[in-house]
Amino acid sequence: MMYQNGVNNVKKTLVIIAHPEVADSQLQQFLLESSQSLEEVEIHYLIEGQFDIKEEQNKLKKFDRIIFQFPMYWYSAPFILKKWIDEVIDYTFSKTELRHKELGLVVSLGVDEANFASGKPENFTLSEIFRPFEALANKCQMIFLPIFSISLFSYMTEIEKKRLLIEYQQYLTKKNNVNFETKENWFVSRGKSISKTYEDTKQENLEQIISIIENNREEIEDLRLLIDEMRSDEP
Amino acid sequence: MMYQNGVNNVKKTLVIIAHPEVADSQLQQFLLESSQSLEEVEIHYLIEGQFDIKEEQNKLKKFDRIIFQFPMYWYSAPFILKKWIDEVIDYTFSKTELRHKELGLVVSLGVDEANFASGKPENFTLSEIFRPFEALANKCQMIFLPIFSISLFSYMTEIEKKRLLIEYQQYLTKKNNVNFETKENWFVSRGKSISKTYEDTKQENLEQIISIIENNREEIEDLRLLIDEMRSDEP
Repeated sequence: MMYQNGVNNVKKTLVIIAHPEVADSQLQQFLLESSQSLEEVEIHYLIEGQFDIKEEQNKLKKFDRIIFQFPMYWYSAPFILKKWIDEVIDYTFSKTELRHKELGLVVSLGVDEANFASGKPENFTLSEIFRPFEALANKCQMIFLPIFSISLFSYMTEIEKKRLLIEYQQYLTKKNNVNFETKENWFVSRGKSISKTYEDTKQENLEQIISIIENNREEIEDLRLLIDEMRSDEP
Repeated sequence: MMYQNGVNNVKKTLVIIAHPEVADSQLQQFLLESSQSLEEVEIHYLIEGQFDIKEEQNKLKKFDRIIFQFPMYWYSAPFILKKWIDEVIDYTFSKTELRHKELGLVVSLGVDEANFASGKPENFTLSEIFRPFEALANKCQMIFLPIFSISLFSYMTEIEKKRLLIEYQQYLTKKNNVNFETKENWFVSRGKSISKTYEDTKQENLEQIISIIENNREEIEDLRLLIDEMRSDEP
């Protein structure tokens, strides 16, 4: 297999949580459970008090993808995240150590996301509201990921929550591009990883699904090769 | 005189300063000196520690214009201001007590303001970067003032600094509209207020200038009346 991401043991993603009441937040607990089975993800809570700057900087160096996860308070993150940014990302560090890493935001909203648009009640889009984070990423030569926003979690149906779980897991660990092959690869490696924990019959079913996906992909690749050959024969 | 603002003793503007080292900042010291003679302005420093929420809220209620004054740190205010906003502006307060007040930002920049535009090094405009404050103002039904930005203060000439002083004083106390009459009124009332502190000859000079401005204005008003009359005579 060409794409191993998700099945090896290398830590990849650091989720920095800035939330004053993680234990009382249904959504944060749901997200934590969703990420628990992802071996390449580490969770890092920000707690009030002094940060050990060197320790925080060393932690950041180890990961390819940094995620800020927080509820939107007054059109930004809770102040604790700004404190962390102000103190940890100093000039030298920003110039040298974050380059080519990815920066993502997982933002929960108390109102419907549809309200964030010109002429709607909130008037500005989430992309506009979170420009300061995009500008930070630019300055550090990081790649800014699409914002992952979650609104009105408590009104979600079970199916919506399952979809959220998959999309969130992908946001944390999937290769950052949107083509179909990447999505397929993610499902295959993820499937292989979780099938071990299943009972025998379920495991067999999952392995069958995975082998169908893999066979289909081989067929698609064969077809692509054929098309390329046919094209090269054209006058 | 129809426009008394600036000569009476009513507090009008609250400047909330979020700067970790005000005493060591040449610019902040310059701004403080510039505002010292303005009787309608009160300065409020944010210091780390617990805020007395009720006290802060009561203070806000007293002023028509609230100014956040800070150096831009990572495309926003230093975290202490976000802490203050998160804690002081609670839901009920935001819905009831800030309506129709004005919100302004006095932001100092470490780089040339010309860098803040599409295709320039910073890529985003200051208006874009400070959208979260504009969104906050909108939500509280406040009037968001144009951003007052100061870049590269230490490279300014004496004349540039004098201009900055006037513009800053106007930002704090001038009626929020840009027509010429407002500017003129501001100069007249400000001139009358400071002339008391001058020695006799300077005071006379200043009073002469003021009376010239006032006479000119009367002449302009007469001319306007004449034009209106002439128009009403038209067929």
